[in-house]
Amino acid sequence: MRIDPKLALTTTTLAALGAVTAATTSALAQAADCPSMPEAPAHHFVPANNETVHWGYFSKGREPQAVIHSGDLVTIETLTHHANDDAERMVKGDPGAESVFRWGRGDKGVDRRGAGPMDASIHGRGAGEGFGVHVLTGPIYVCGAEPGDILEVRILDVSPRPSGNPDYSGKTFGSNAAAWWGYHYNDMIEEPKPREVITIYEIDTAGGKDWAKAVYNYRWVPQTDPDGVVHEIIDYPGVPVDHSTISKNAPVLEGVRVPIRPHFGTMGVAPVEADFVDSIPPGYFGGNIDNWRIGKGGTMYYPVAVEGALLSAGDPHAAQGDSELAGTAIETSLTGILQVVLHKKDDLAGTQLEGLDYPLLETDSEWVVHGFSYANYLDELGESAQSEIYSKSSIDNAMRDAFRKMRHFLMTAKGLSEDEAISLMSVATDFGVTQVVDGNWGVHGIIDKRVFAGDSE
Amino acid sequence: MRIDPKLALTTTTLAALGAVTAATTSALAQAADCPSMPEAPAHHFVPANNETVHWGYFSKGREPQAVIHSGDLVTIETLTHHANDDAERMVKGDPGAESVFRWGRGDKGVDRRGAGPMDASIHGRGAGEGFGVHVLTGPIYVCGAEPGDILEVRILDVSPRPSGNPDYSGKTFGSNAAAWWGYHYNDMIEEPKPREVITIYEIDTAGGKDWAKAVYNYRWVPQTDPDGVVHEIIDYPGVPVDHSTISKNAPVLEGVRVPIRPHFGTMGVAPVEADFVDSIPPGYFGGNIDNWRIGKGGTMYYPVAVEGALLSAGDPHAAQGDSELAGTAIETSLTGILQVVLHKKDDLAGTQLEGLDYPLLETDSEWVVHGFSYANYLDELGESAQSEIYSKSSIDNAMRDAFRKMRHFLMTAKGLSEDEAISLMSVATDFGVTQVVDGNWGVHGIIDKRVFAGDSE
Repeated sequence: MRIDPKLALTTTTLAALGAVTAATTSALAQAADCPSMPEAPAHHFVPANNETVHWGYFSKGREPQAVIHSGDLVTIETLTHHANDDAERMVKGDPGAESVFRWGRGDKGVDRRGAGPMDASIHGRGAGEGFGVHVLTGPIYVCGAEPGDILEVRILDVSPRPSGNPDYSGKTFGSNAAAWWGYHYNDMIEEPKPREVITIYEIDTAGGKDWAKAVYNYRWVPQTDPDGVVHEIIDYPGVPVDHSTISKNAPVLEGVRVPIRPHFGTMGVAPVEADFVDSIPPGYFGGNIDNWRIGKGGTMYYPVAVEGALLSAGDPHAAQGDSELAGTAIETSLTGILQVVLHKKDDLAGTQLEGLDYPLLETDSEWVVHGFSYANYLDELGESAQSEIYSKSSIDNAMRDAFRKMRHFLMTAKGLSEDEAISLMSVATDFGVTQVVDGNWGVHGIIDKRVFAGDSE
Repeated sequence: MRIDPKLALTTTTLAALGAVTAATTSALAQAADCPSMPEAPAHHFVPANNETVHWGYFSKGREPQAVIHSGDLVTIETLTHHANDDAERMVKGDPGAESVFRWGRGDKGVDRRGAGPMDASIHGRGAGEGFGVHVLTGPIYVCGAEPGDILEVRILDVSPRPSGNPDYSGKTFGSNAAAWWGYHYNDMIEEPKPREVITIYEIDTAGGKDWAKAVYNYRWVPQTDPDGVVHEIIDYPGVPVDHSTISKNAPVLEGVRVPIRPHFGTMGVAPVEADFVDSIPPGYFGGNIDNWRIGKGGTMYYPVAVEGALLSAGDPHAAQGDSELAGTAIETSLTGILQVVLHKKDDLAGTQLEGLDYPLLETDSEWVVHGFSYANYLDELGESAQSEIYSKSSIDNAMRDAFRKMRHFLMTAKGLSEDEAISLMSVATDFGVTQVVDGNWGVHGIIDKRVFAGDSE
């Protein structure tokens, strides 16, 4: 989800609206006092519930939900922020999800949703204003992590979260919202236009089927939330959809099988530039990259920007295509097993992580760099960066950034001259459109590891 | 290669400069008088030599080099226009290539190179001015083909053309030019900048190794052609590089293996909009799409624009990455075996080809639509289209076009509603950057055929 550019926040506004103060930060550092390093890696568990998640923002000031050492394992639950599109299938009977999505008059399981003001003084949508939408679990404090270090996050496993409703035992569901921030929204053919459409997909929890299928779809109609706010469009996350108000169409996408690609749409470390950072635009810190390759077997490398790194993950997807065209993926709660390795800045020289100031993905077969319309929009666009970025979306700019990053990677990590790197990029690197829906649009560059398999004789 | 926008041609100028007249066209139609259809498909052979190729342009007026029926097979030789970057390896001892690249004072094997004037009145580069650069073999006249039909071209085989020089027996070579029209050219790090660099690659002719390796590289230095014109940059195709003037660097890209992806960078039918069409910008007629997936096992579908379709192929590549970043691929002469099938316009209703007005690729596993900055720049940009297009390059526009084409494909060929198509695009379609170097930049959309494998139960 993205926010309307003209309605968004400036850093200054955010600071005035209850952002974390230096005093708070200090208290948190104390909270993350690190125990001595154990002999064997520990395995931590971070469940998803209304205490462990932060909704719609990254914050360097948020209290850690786990404190770990380099090498430790973390099982982390993540919830989709679209679960209330069909609460029967994605919330009911799931205590963690119920605690997060609970919403009675004046009483929400998680009140703040977004980086905006708590009193919703801008639009009245609700606390946080929906300036940022993803349910994120964490953060995880990594002992010894400091700005300038690199955090390696190995995704050892990703599995679908089964429905908690006995009526759907053994099944997992996800929601795809073709929404107002989608690339298609003002460029539709059929009437009525524009329109927002939710499609509910079913995923095989056990993993025997490597594809998802559509169950039904419905057109979004205005929803009145428990606080009485009417949401004409999908402008605030977690609004419970009253299924007595919608008209379901089924079957839809008959016979169509969507190959599953479970991954974390959003994962990253806390940025240093602002206290509350909208979860939607990705950046150097990772965040909402929305690359479906960030799944099982993948390893992400993030530049650490604040003490403890403060890793969070969420926005889980069962499947997404390059571009995420309509605005969302198959938004599906997932549980991951991560191993986190810290690389200290003094040890980076001469390694493939030297000079890394962007999020890098390594898979079994590929290296992937992530370019954005702005490599670091929070810094480049100044005080109003968090609103400005939405008016500056550009694939052309993201391609330029991806080119420069791939060149950097090939010259630094692989020791090529610029001429060698340029030639290799032209003949062996694939550039693709990561997403065109997250404000700071993305282009990724992929180079096959076989290219570096060894001597060419 | 692209031409400088401010130096290019208008359709009007071209018409005044010896373009094919109606009288000529009429004579050609006579030449393509179709024999009666044989009982079994025939297998034609179109070699590449100075009689059978046209260099740097498509033309609806060019005399066919073969006349075939729907269903016939064609073995077609294609030559890279970069062979003279290392004539020892890519021209010498190869009679076809020698006939094409022969160049003595006032005497070229193929004089016209490009869609420009024959007297080189604009820049003095040479006949055709290099407004279009690809050596294309053909055209092939398909009996019965008329505007509105669809031409299906099945690529049954693609194989590297061995060096004709006994010193390099059993080897094939290719050239990668990181040139002034490359995406990187005005955005370099190392000195001197800017600079053009040629890298020569070696390919295993026998196919035992599925990768290419770099042999050496050199920086382009001004070359004086046999007619005395000095080429400070790579501004005219086929200029013989005098290897006594260059400085070779070797080894380069040590240990690097470039996965081979043999394909035709340029293949398509003759456009109707102008008599001489620069071979560089791709369009509805196909042409210089530069998608590495257009290789063995692939099938292209092109909208026929003129009588006989007039299919040509060339610009052969051993490998290319999505974006063709530096301006070229590994430019390598290849021979293909094609089967050509004609689909008459009256038979298209209800088929997956209905309403197809863009070049579509089918592979064993995927459907691929091709979007461009302008879907039909020749029509959309008016009289000066052939120069204007170079100032209007945009990935953002190409993505918009690719989105619309994929939606069309899913709704027409797969019978989906718009809502179904939009959702499926978001969760299962991958959009990538085809090229950013051909004036009319490209974004392709890919959908996996497994998506339509059948009932989802």
